[in-house]
Amino acid sequence: MSLSFEIAAVSAEGGRRGQLTLPHGDVQTPVFMPVGTAATVKAVAQDVVETLGDPVVPGEDGLLPRGAEIILANTYHLYLRPGHELIRRAGGVHRFMSWRRPMLTDSGGFQVFSLASLRKITADGVEFRSHLDGSKHFFSPEHSMAVQIALGADIMMAFDECVETPASWERTRDSMALTHAWAARSKAYWEEHRHEVPWAYPPSGPHESKSGTEFARAYDHQHFEEKHQALFGIVQGGMYPDLRKESAEKLVEMDFPGYAIGGLAVGEPREVTREMIMRTLEHLPSDKPRYVMGVGYPDEIEEYARMGVDMMDCVLPTRAGRHGLLFIREDPHDRRSPVVRLNIKKLDNAENQGPIDAGCHCQVCRRYSRAYLRHLFASGEPLGATLNSIHNLAFYLETMERVRGDLSKFPDSLEPPSAREVRFP
Amino acid sequence: MSLSFEIAAVSAEGGRRGQLTLPHGDVQTPVFMPVGTAATVKAVAQDVVETLGDPVVPGEDGLLPRGAEIILANTYHLYLRPGHELIRRAGGVHRFMSWRRPMLTDSGGFQVFSLASLRKITADGVEFRSHLDGSKHFFSPEHSMAVQIALGADIMMAFDECVETPASWERTRDSMALTHAWAARSKAYWEEHRHEVPWAYPPSGPHESKSGTEFARAYDHQHFEEKHQALFGIVQGGMYPDLRKESAEKLVEMDFPGYAIGGLAVGEPREVTREMIMRTLEHLPSDKPRYVMGVGYPDEIEEYARMGVDMMDCVLPTRAGRHGLLFIREDPHDRRSPVVRLNIKKLDNAENQGPIDAGCHCQVCRRYSRAYLRHLFASGEPLGATLNSIHNLAFYLETMERVRGDLSKFPDSLEPPSAREVRFP
Repeated sequence: MSLSFEIAAVSAEGGRRGQLTLPHGDVQTPVFMPVGTAATVKAVAQDVVETLGDPVVPGEDGLLPRGAEIILANTYHLYLRPGHELIRRAGGVHRFMSWRRPMLTDSGGFQVFSLASLRKITADGVEFRSHLDGSKHFFSPEHSMAVQIALGADIMMAFDECVETPASWERTRDSMALTHAWAARSKAYWEEHRHEVPWAYPPSGPHESKSGTEFARAYDHQHFEEKHQALFGIVQGGMYPDLRKESAEKLVEMDFPGYAIGGLAVGEPREVTREMIMRTLEHLPSDKPRYVMGVGYPDEIEEYARMGVDMMDCVLPTRAGRHGLLFIREDPHDRRSPVVRLNIKKLDNAENQGPIDAGCHCQVCRRYSRAYLRHLFASGEPLGATLNSIHNLAFYLETMERVRGDLSKFPDSLEPPSAREVRFP
Repeated sequence: MSLSFEIAAVSAEGGRRGQLTLPHGDVQTPVFMPVGTAATVKAVAQDVVETLGDPVVPGEDGLLPRGAEIILANTYHLYLRPGHELIRRAGGVHRFMSWRRPMLTDSGGFQVFSLASLRKITADGVEFRSHLDGSKHFFSPEHSMAVQIALGADIMMAFDECVETPASWERTRDSMALTHAWAARSKAYWEEHRHEVPWAYPPSGPHESKSGTEFARAYDHQHFEEKHQALFGIVQGGMYPDLRKESAEKLVEMDFPGYAIGGLAVGEPREVTREMIMRTLEHLPSDKPRYVMGVGYPDEIEEYARMGVDMMDCVLPTRAGRHGLLFIREDPHDRRSPVVRLNIKKLDNAENQGPIDAGCHCQVCRRYSRAYLRHLFASGEPLGATLNSIHNLAFYLETMERVRGDLSKFPDSLEPPSAREVRFP
């Protein structure tokens, strides 16, 4: 078993309150996944990522924050540095970075197309040069799978081509066809090799438990023998609803444990993003998790979650934080009021003794003032980036916690009982 | 009352196990004080600084780490940015940075002499240009005191001149004489103005408690009405024992709540530093706290603590951490074995799944491997500097915890009973 997905309630709009069960734990959906590009959520330590957000989970001494239940890492970056074979030898990316909860890796496709220089695409794969040292590399669907199996995230992604924006219908169709061929090859490789994931090894395997950290010793005591990674297919089709439909149907035929909607939030107007998501969701099976990649602003992730998207990820909370941009509510005491961006650099924060967001219960808002955060930012102090990132991540997680609360109120009668629990072998 | 100092035990070598009681809390001595130059211990959040080190303090659910009981902030840096008046209006540096425990500020003298350009020294004070924007400033003893009172640390330092190294006996004597004149002026200003410290204001003062953070509201409920800051004199005299003696005697005549030994660790050989400390300590009163500024390596702070130094500070643990240099024990399971520096960048750490220091119980050594820390450093990830700094600070605190344990074993009969508790009015 690699993945199971249970849906507890569905709203009239199609929003789903569910739970994803993965080898490294459970994930309440809809979920926002913080991005840990190089096996680190930038500037935020793992124990902080685990305890982000409002206290909502009953613990021994009252409520505890849920923290991020799943994070993402980037295959392209980890492949180049420190290298996937090194991470495999360390027991996989969880053990390497000391993260005990679920993880997802992208396929590297998006980074290869957007970051790497001198790329050359053939039907077989993509040749590119590293953004770090200019060295030459080749990614095929099979190679992306091999790298992702070495990394060992709970969920891996099929290797897809991301078309440039804007692109003609013909260009988009041809690219989509390549994505479909690559999806089939990705799936074939995954089925044949998924037993090679590093945490399927016995604890007496290549990593020497005895010389490891306390974390590593605890990790090695877990049992993953019956478990492997899940593979998601990625729907492409650009900004063309007919191609989105075709792509969704084609991938559903291939029968993946979950489906992603790719190629969005690449510069198109927001109404178009929304339209493409809506026009894709209607062709995806209701009993499988649905993941929109690389979105978005807090109000967007809320909107898409209410439409029936189960998973989302975005670098925005951490990247904006590093630039001193903080997400707050227009009326801090009404968590449904519009999202506003606060620029901490601004002079009017210089003597503001209040928190970033008076209605936020994150560890930053409870302790630090805007005046102090502005000072840290103005002084280039590393703690500024850390605290800003923590608040923004907590804001995203709080938003999703509220959406999940709303969706939980819906009767679960809208979904046929058979679809509520689906275990993918 | 500003400061009380109790000595519980004294070793044959002169090392003292004591407790310093300050307006913001108690400090177990001998103590190492992490440096928070710009009101932040670089790259380490306040809640982490509070929980550094081995678990040694009994708590509700077992032992808790003591954390740093006192930290230092730099007057020169905070004067320039964000400005001492801004910090005064925020309620002082504790409230500004959300740090509830004791703090110490230096006088700004050392930074003015070593960092600022175009300095011009007269008997009245020092004119200098800001290293940030070249703007012109003037620091006199009175101005340094005014700035330090606005910052409101528990301990402030007299304004002194730091002589260049090497310096002739005559040059050192003249500089020392200036330091003594400035010490008298510092003390006069402090005595007249110490009631102006911002936390002596009633909680309904200039900072609006209601709009503050949870931390600020709790801070404002403390009562400091009867308390004020302590001022330490600084012994100078360069590398000349006769001048050190003269300086110590002169300052002791002025009767400060505590005494610092300045002008050391400025490039002289380590035997000279040790000699100067020893030759100064013998002229300082045994019932007052003694602070050696700006030292040193972990084995140095241990050595000086055993000689009778009660307080030390140094940027080394955080600065070395940001450069990937980590302090460990040669034999990790013998905490009395020599200190070794580990360069995390080195290739032989690339696949090392063990912790930095297998005998260290800090949060970094319990969770993260050398391989991961090397990856973070090589990738320029901000978490690398944070985790390295945490380990190094914990290593320093663990060292002092062990020294305090050793000193506690000595009978307290070596010290006359009357000297054990001295309250400075």
